[in-house]
Amino acid sequence: MSERLVIIGGDAAGMSAASQARRLKGPRELEIVAFERGNFTSFSACGIPYWVAGDVDERDALIARTPQEHQQRHIDLRMRTEVLEIDPRERRVRARDLASGAEEWTSYDKLVIATGARPLRPDLPGIDAPGVHGVQTLDDGQALLDTLGDTEGRRAVVVGAGYIGVEMAEALLRRGYEVTVVNRSAEPMATLDPDMGRLVHEAMTGMGITMVNDAEVTAVRTGDDGRARAVATEDDEFPADVVVLGMGVRPETELARAAGLPLGDHGGLLTDLSMRVRGPVADGAIWAGGDCVEVLDLVWGRERHIALGTHANKHGQVIGANVGGGYATFPGVVGTAVSKVCDLEIARTGLREKDARSAGLQYEAVTIESTSRAGYFPGAASMAVKMLAERRTGRLLGTQIVGREGAGKRVDVAAVALTARMTVEQMTALDLGYAPPFSPVWDPVLVAARKAVAAVRAGSAA
Amino acid sequence: MSERLVIIGGDAAGMSAASQARRLKGPRELEIVAFERGNFTSFSACGIPYWVAGDVDERDALIARTPQEHQQRHIDLRMRTEVLEIDPRERRVRARDLASGAEEWTSYDKLVIATGARPLRPDLPGIDAPGVHGVQTLDDGQALLDTLGDTEGRRAVVVGAGYIGVEMAEALLRRGYEVTVVNRSAEPMATLDPDMGRLVHEAMTGMGITMVNDAEVTAVRTGDDGRARAVATEDDEFPADVVVLGMGVRPETELARAAGLPLGDHGGLLTDLSMRVRGPVADGAIWAGGDCVEVLDLVWGRERHIALGTHANKHGQVIGANVGGGYATFPGVVGTAVSKVCDLEIARTGLREKDARSAGLQYEAVTIESTSRAGYFPGAASMAVKMLAERRTGRLLGTQIVGREGAGKRVDVAAVALTARMTVEQMTALDLGYAPPFSPVWDPVLVAARKAVAAVRAGSAA
Repeated sequence: MSERLVIIGGDAAGMSAASQARRLKGPRELEIVAFERGNFTSFSACGIPYWVAGDVDERDALIARTPQEHQQRHIDLRMRTEVLEIDPRERRVRARDLASGAEEWTSYDKLVIATGARPLRPDLPGIDAPGVHGVQTLDDGQALLDTLGDTEGRRAVVVGAGYIGVEMAEALLRRGYEVTVVNRSAEPMATLDPDMGRLVHEAMTGMGITMVNDAEVTAVRTGDDGRARAVATEDDEFPADVVVLGMGVRPETELARAAGLPLGDHGGLLTDLSMRVRGPVADGAIWAGGDCVEVLDLVWGRERHIALGTHANKHGQVIGANVGGGYATFPGVVGTAVSKVCDLEIARTGLREKDARSAGLQYEAVTIESTSRAGYFPGAASMAVKMLAERRTGRLLGTQIVGREGAGKRVDVAAVALTARMTVEQMTALDLGYAPPFSPVWDPVLVAARKAVAAVRAGSAA
Repeated sequence: MSERLVIIGGDAAGMSAASQARRLKGPRELEIVAFERGNFTSFSACGIPYWVAGDVDERDALIARTPQEHQQRHIDLRMRTEVLEIDPRERRVRARDLASGAEEWTSYDKLVIATGARPLRPDLPGIDAPGVHGVQTLDDGQALLDTLGDTEGRRAVVVGAGYIGVEMAEALLRRGYEVTVVNRSAEPMATLDPDMGRLVHEAMTGMGITMVNDAEVTAVRTGDDGRARAVATEDDEFPADVVVLGMGVRPETELARAAGLPLGDHGGLLTDLSMRVRGPVADGAIWAGGDCVEVLDLVWGRERHIALGTHANKHGQVIGANVGGGYATFPGVVGTAVSKVCDLEIARTGLREKDARSAGLQYEAVTIESTSRAGYFPGAASMAVKMLAERRTGRLLGTQIVGREGAGKRVDVAAVALTARMTVEQMTALDLGYAPPFSPVWDPVLVAARKAVAAVRAGSAA
């Protein structure tokens, strides 16, 4: 008796699930059908800014596994085929072949929803004009590269200053553009506290990028040829030969919503720890993972939506193990992220000050300056480390790092400490790697922990 | 009523203790007398190879705090003064001013022993000949630099292939020497398992360094001028214009032994978790820290001797807090170390295979190859990660990493996971920083953890 596993979405979460399930069960035991509406599978969306920058030579380098490779592994992958409806009562999905327009119902024993996220694209005048680009898909990346190749002008406006925004600012700067970043928040990188975002702001200004904060875009102005020529805010207008949108993403869950599946406060699907969709409608037969789900924030104690390829891959592994007859769970996240803009590295994990307040936590916050290597070692680069610890208990709540080479991945120490629910005092004793080319004798994370210990003590005495 | 704190040894542990105690108690409450037999305080011995290599321009860059700076902070620091005897019954020490030869007893209420370690220097013919150098003190470093400046020849032999040995091999290579490393172990870096040491061996050979393993030095041959001219082993002889000894260190505990204080299996002082020397002789009035003590290995469950500046600084902080009326502990180590030779990064934490066997632990060992960045990202450098997990429980026991840029400090993730006693399965869910310039979508440490999970499962089924 063969079971049928149906997968909606051919990217990281969906195809990791397919591959893992196939590893556990052969084609006689488990039939796997996967629907992908686009032209590609298993590609690295996070790599697009580096392709645009020229770090990565060609599109195909970003493809981890092609449709053909999946098909060779006995996965019935149907490209350019869009699922239009999930019918959980009858356990079937309705899909349309985008070329022929033909529609067909496919029944499932188990279903994986891996529909990803869609970029925010506010309904503003001119937003769809030629010269305005998203950077979500490989097609988006190619279209942007085509525009950059066609355009004489050298002025670029990036809307949004999150990870995509700052990475695209670097990419365009390195391609010789005058770059303006227009950002609705007080500082870039709103995933950091504003005092740390300020450091990013100053560094980007130092790189020659024009930073416009606290500014809401009201329209994209177009020229006589209909192409984008400027980005307008309430107070100002910024000339643009090319406009890149990096305003964040929302879970792509319209199918799930229409099917009556449970969505969280951020619009993402809600699953249990095995990544199985909760509730009676799913009836234990539907799993979901990747950018379309919400995940438990282990520090905050609630669900969040975090679109990251590394989580999507983990979800896929967990789902694949479970639908393949094994057992695995995804316990949650602590909110780790790292990025860079030119030589500036930006990292964060855990809660920001406003998150801690929102979670009902009282905290002490400290910031220190240190270096990536022993101070006397060539290339020792400065970094700022901000650390939040719970008042009285001293439990680590979050860490943010802004610095140069060697700064970003230090956040992993805090990420593991958060997972283990360590106190900042426990952290001061951590046995981290030390040698002059790698760290000062007190690693910057430990320096921050020591200052946090002192703040917690002072706060407890008060 | 002022108390007197006496400190023996003016380097990392001793002077960190002095500084921390002074922060907590002013000179009216606590008199601090520190004896240092050498010419320097608070210097970075770990920095000496980089000074010799030319990365660090001048000796004084390696001095974190001069005697004058300590004295300005109301520490009665007596340079060039050697403590000859500890009298724990009378709570006093006998010290000699090395210039005048005058001896004097100084009483203490609390004593800190921070006498450090001394390099191993086997009693071999020619070992004290001109041209044979240790690299433990700043004077050693200067003497070696003087020899390098005076010597016409360009052949260097390094004896020992631990951290100091490989770092000195790099330093001499970069100064234009033909470098031979003679090593008694089967592979260099005996703090790694031999299979990982083999990778270091191959990389060093690739750098043009001649590696001679499994070879015991029997003599240093001297020329007519009395200077070293070759290093002899049982089977061979290696011409040398300069010889550098990097054969490891032993705790410097002769004073402590003579005073009847308790020493461990490795010759180091034994303390409690507050770094107070154990037993009735110390009578609760003597603390010890830095390279002269043994520390609890939290994975092994027994004491080890690990000479590292980062531990010495932590010990000093803990001792200073406790003798200053505060409270702190040093819970132990997990055995983390990181080093490099040219662009090869070498890191380890926890137990090697032979350590695990010696500790009575059964384990699974796996090794994976991965890269420091996304595979498609420029500069993605390969690394090997070896991971040991306890049989059945899957608890992480150790991790070793050999690779290029971005490899070494990844060991910190394993160090924190060891401290938190995580299983390799828990590690697979760790939320580590991901972006293409920083990591593949599965961080190499997580790839190793996944393979270890599979090995533990297979081992449990067996």
